[in-house]
Amino acid sequence: VFDVGIVGASGFGGTELLRLLARHPSARVVVRAAASQAERRVGELAPNIPAELGDARFEAVDLDALARTDLVFLGTPDEVSLELAPGLLAAGVRVVDLSGAFRLPADEFDRWYRRPHMAPGLALDGATPAVYGLTEFNREAIVTARLIANPGCYPTATLLGLLPLQELIVPEGIVVSGLSGTSGAGRSTREDLQAAIVHGDVVAYGAPLHRHTAEIERQLAGGAEGRPIAISFTPHLLPMSRGLLATISAQLLPGVGQAEVDAALVAAYSHEPFVHVLPAGTFPRTKAVHGSNACQVSAVVDPRTQRVLITSAIDNLGKGAAGQALQNANLMLGLEETAGLDAIGVYP
Amino acid sequence: VFDVGIVGASGFGGTELLRLLARHPSARVVVRAAASQAERRVGELAPNIPAELGDARFEAVDLDALARTDLVFLGTPDEVSLELAPGLLAAGVRVVDLSGAFRLPADEFDRWYRRPHMAPGLALDGATPAVYGLTEFNREAIVTARLIANPGCYPTATLLGLLPLQELIVPEGIVVSGLSGTSGAGRSTREDLQAAIVHGDVVAYGAPLHRHTAEIERQLAGGAEGRPIAISFTPHLLPMSRGLLATISAQLLPGVGQAEVDAALVAAYSHEPFVHVLPAGTFPRTKAVHGSNACQVSAVVDPRTQRVLITSAIDNLGKGAAGQALQNANLMLGLEETAGLDAIGVYP
Amino acid sequence: VFDVGIVGASGFGGTELLRLLARHPSARVVVRAAASQAERRVGELAPNIPAELGDARFEAVDLDALARTDLVFLGTPDEVSLELAPGLLAAGVRVVDLSGAFRLPADEFDRWYRRPHMAPGLALDGATPAVYGLTEFNREAIVTARLIANPGCYPTATLLGLLPLQELIVPEGIVVSGLSGTSGAGRSTREDLQAAIVHGDVVAYGAPLHRHTAEIERQLAGGAEGRPIAISFTPHLLPMSRGLLATISAQLLPGVGQAEVDAALVAAYSHEPFVHVLPAGTFPRTKAVHGSNACQVSAVVDPRTQRVLITSAIDNLGKGAAGQALQNANLMLGLEETAGLDAIGVYP
Amino acid sequence: VFDVGIVGASGFGGTELLRLLARHPSARVVVRAAASQAERRVGELAPNIPAELGDARFEAVDLDALARTDLVFLGTPDEVSLELAPGLLAAGVRVVDLSGAFRLPADEFDRWYRRPHMAPGLALDGATPAVYGLTEFNREAIVTARLIANPGCYPTATLLGLLPLQELIVPEGIVVSGLSGTSGAGRSTREDLQAAIVHGDVVAYGAPLHRHTAEIERQLAGGAEGRPIAISFTPHLLPMSRGLLATISAQLLPGVGQAEVDAALVAAYSHEPFVHVLPAGTFPRTKAVHGSNACQVSAVVDPRTQRVLITSAIDNLGKGAAGQALQNANLMLGLEETAGLDAIGVYP
Repeated sequence: VFDVGIVGASGFGGTELLRLLARHPSARVVVRAAASQAERRVGELAPNIPAELGDARFEAVDLDALARTDLVFLGTPDEVSLELAPGLLAAGVRVVDLSGAFRLPADEFDRWYRRPHMAPGLALDGATPAVYGLTEFNREAIVTARLIANPGCYPTATLLGLLPLQELIVPEGIVVSGLSGTSGAGRSTREDLQAAIVHGDVVAYGAPLHRHTAEIERQLAGGAEGRPIAISFTPHLLPMSRGLLATISAQLLPGVGQAEVDAALVAAYSHEPFVHVLPAGTFPRTKAVHGSNACQVSAVVDPRTQRVLITSAIDNLGKGAAGQALQNANLMLGLEETAGLDAIGVYP
Repeated sequence: VFDVGIVGASGFGGTELLRLLARHPSARVVVRAAASQAERRVGELAPNIPAELGDARFEAVDLDALARTDLVFLGTPDEVSLELAPGLLAAGVRVVDLSGAFRLPADEFDRWYRRPHMAPGLALDGATPAVYGLTEFNREAIVTARLIANPGCYPTATLLGLLPLQELIVPEGIVVSGLSGTSGAGRSTREDLQAAIVHGDVVAYGAPLHRHTAEIERQLAGGAEGRPIAISFTPHLLPMSRGLLATISAQLLPGVGQAEVDAALVAAYSHEPFVHVLPAGTFPRTKAVHGSNACQVSAVVDPRTQRVLITSAIDNLGKGAAGQALQNANLMLGLEETAGLDAIGVYP
Repeated sequence: VFDVGIVGASGFGGTELLRLLARHPSARVVVRAAASQAERRVGELAPNIPAELGDARFEAVDLDALARTDLVFLGTPDEVSLELAPGLLAAGVRVVDLSGAFRLPADEFDRWYRRPHMAPGLALDGATPAVYGLTEFNREAIVTARLIANPGCYPTATLLGLLPLQELIVPEGIVVSGLSGTSGAGRSTREDLQAAIVHGDVVAYGAPLHRHTAEIERQLAGGAEGRPIAISFTPHLLPMSRGLLATISAQLLPGVGQAEVDAALVAAYSHEPFVHVLPAGTFPRTKAVHGSNACQVSAVVDPRTQRVLITSAIDNLGKGAAGQALQNANLMLGLEETAGLDAIGVYP
Repeated sequence: VFDVGIVGASGFGGTELLRLLARHPSARVVVRAAASQAERRVGELAPNIPAELGDARFEAVDLDALARTDLVFLGTPDEVSLELAPGLLAAGVRVVDLSGAFRLPADEFDRWYRRPHMAPGLALDGATPAVYGLTEFNREAIVTARLIANPGCYPTATLLGLLPLQELIVPEGIVVSGLSGTSGAGRSTREDLQAAIVHGDVVAYGAPLHRHTAEIERQLAGGAEGRPIAISFTPHLLPMSRGLLATISAQLLPGVGQAEVDAALVAAYSHEPFVHVLPAGTFPRTKAVHGSNACQVSAVVDPRTQRVLITSAIDNLGKGAAGQALQNANLMLGLEETAGLDAIGVYP
């Protein structure tokens, strides 16, 4: 049994990791660090966690304790991850970072996050770079990685939809609409995330410069005829807790039709345990993957416009955060990739 | 005081008209026809309507009674509107039709609705065509119209966002994401509209051949360099009752920037009572217009991609259906355009 | 036209008053004070308020400006109301206080609010006591009042259900379940009011010592055989923004049946513009009164247990706060009681 | 590995059983019967079920196929259960019935269901009576039972709260408020269960003669001083999909206080895997048990009124239906009681 630690254990990503790891066959949580919530009972912030675990208390961040674990999940803000990761790696601990700290080359980070990257050697183009943890497309590197940049929620859904079709589409004019439940914003007391305000409402935000835009573009670059990619990405806040749908529209190359699109998706995912391709005309729904690590993808070609419509649904705390983090950790620890992740979505 | 009738009075559009007309200064409802719900108390289906009106009963459709009114609202399915409108017009009654029956040229109707149009003379390209009732862009024709094709909910939000910018954008590659509460589907017992299924879920549907696509394209044709328009439109069902947001992405012509976009929106709407332009970076939210006839529009330019992101929020039963229908009826009857429509959105 | 001021104008009660007063025929808001939000645009916190009013800014609290108005609404915390009310009254300004500051006798306030009442002369048993503003039961005193203790949301719904039946029930064993949308908790960034936490969840809170318990008991005392009343009240937080339902169970006196209960409700409310009695077996629903000042009440007798079940629905920001405050203000200013309050609930 | 069948497999209880059994270590579903939905793909109605199982089709009811299984779950309407159960039992198959068919003595069934019981020998007071499947209070009988009357959702939550306190309370004046998500009404196209109507609304229904009243009273009879019990039960429809909270108020016997109440709950549940007692003042929340078989219970004494307030939260499709059915089936088949039921609630 491996010992793992979580920093930022009281956040939504952190408590989801606690939930998943409570049923993991070969890993156990030995450190639950949460700077601002230290000393509070786990069950106070995560009332779903049964008493034996719920009675534990969040701890202050203690690097020595973390250094004794096999792997640490960082569910921390970018700046905290940048601060903690180098030391943990130096201590020989594997790290899965759920923040945006290591998802971009350093210079792009500087531009999109509007501050200098404090650990450029670990950035995507650094000397000992983090591995981008979109498991299905990076499995080999993940197995031997020491530091995983766990993908953002919107990039996960978008890339799982777009990457298999990359050779079939024109790299310009890709439009992505992201629809997310509010847990994606983290445990936050921001005034616009109050229940009374969010309920019965929908609103776009953050466009056109949301940071996930750069993360998506980075992963698409190189495909799509080798030309630079610029997507138009608009995230929206939806009146629900969990669930994320990416609705993607892209121009197909001349001559590409439904058959080629279907074939590309099947080729990419027919052996994947977590990505389920639905037939064209059946649309993924977020509640079908609620509480699970699954992703549903579907693509339909519009011959009128020669464009493809791709929709991709995940649980933003599952495959979009803690679920994928655990999937990557399983690989890093030499475990079955699906260990602790076999839950089926809770529907309806 | 004008006498008006409603057919389909028990549908969501119909009961919203009953709510609005109950407070109208110079119109009163004298016929509440509802084929399948005839004899049921109004208050049973519309428990918000106070007793004096709520105790009335829905009636069977009686053409003679309707012929004695000044104006009839048809909140009926397309095929019923096609059947009723000619007779009402022949009897000298003005008609505002909330269905899709008269929103397209007859040949396009045939193609998108997959059956022949039964009253082609009243279609948009007919001998005595209906007037498309997007009030802000067709006011003059509405004043003298006898038959209004009241716009669909998605087209209303989309066109109010796109029409002012028509001369500034490339006609290809326009992508529209429509996000709607489920009341937009009408009073329906479809299995996928049950509360237990809709709650906490989001799903796309109907794309790429949703009928509102044709309606939007028809109204955009002629603008945008005179070239034919083909949009990519994806509607989504959201876990809320009312509210509709259109998120629109379009390529700007070279050299067009935020200043030109802002100027175009201000020019279009600065004197409009119901369309409110929000500054770039402030995003419309559907709950701000909940229960009202207002529309909020905002546009932000992305210099990285030279695209514009437009978001437009309405209440699908307000400006997207009954509200706009009443706005048009006011004009047809020579009344103040805003009569009975001064409610402010109920927020939060 | 009367000039009114609002202190606490940025709270949910405050912005609802702004919404209602924007359409009031004979009152206008001349002061919008909001201590912590001063200088922010009204439209930023109340995006439903159209631009002409939305562009105004909240102001710091300025007693001189308030002293020049005819009436001030206090949408402030108890302690601020206790501080402001005496000065405003001394300046000759009428005051409608939406807080709990003046709803109890001073000694009960001390006990339930756990601190000494700072203006006991204005408490319910003081020398110049506030008038409890449950309009339907206190109209005469309200007309000449200088200070109104506007009822709490749960007490409003509960008392409108119970008061007419007071002579028919046993004063012991009254059980009240209160179900409220989260706007009742005010504009708050409390961690348990985040959308991600509230969505899809229901939880009781505050029982058995919620302060509204004392407020309800105080108004019932004297009725019900003159014996002291002690109710069991449990409030619940529901996953919705607005709406409050009180479900009340009380033992009927021997021999009392449905006929007596019906007669009592009809006698109380048949001429009331805002309270609507539904027949036994038809249950009030909160959405029927969404955004309005209405209350729906219904009572059904259970002969098996000789108990009566009363349910009572209001909009907690309407009849439960701002609506009733305006109803009271109308009476104090000699205006039509219903002025500015004729909106019908937005349903569905 | 045991073979089990499900009749009514397309209902919400049925698809939840499919979800649970898909991960069960020693049982597999070999019959998925669904009269009205026969021939439809499982995944069409249960899009969460992954393809290998989702591609199966619901079957017509085939008694021979069912007779070859070890155990059948009946997720059918009462009348269908009454028709199917005798034959299955005769064929030697164990039956867990999720309907109300066998939860009452025959004469009470006749009275509350308003039709004669068609299999009185299997009713609670019959010759070979069903065993009431409230697992925690009936474990011994369940192990050897051939027919389980699986408890209703409201009775499960209410009885888990009340039964341990039965000796401490007065049997009169017990008031229960039930708050349920709409999945409790089953897969239904009733007009009042449409999403547009349910969203943002709360309403009571069915009181005072909801059938679960009799089921609760029956299980309480005999306790509480041996006197007959009559409870006042009011169910409510909440704007959420899953989750059920029972809020219970009862008069305590003189001298009983918080200590006695706490002791009784701890004695009842300290060794139970699925029932979690929260300390007085911490209130159960339905989302903490979302998707799980857990129940959270808490009780707080009000010395002012000498009453106890008990709240009890379950997932109505988990412990309130399919979860408890599987818990009972595990016992009947000699398996670990918790097999396939170790999921932790999905929160937030």
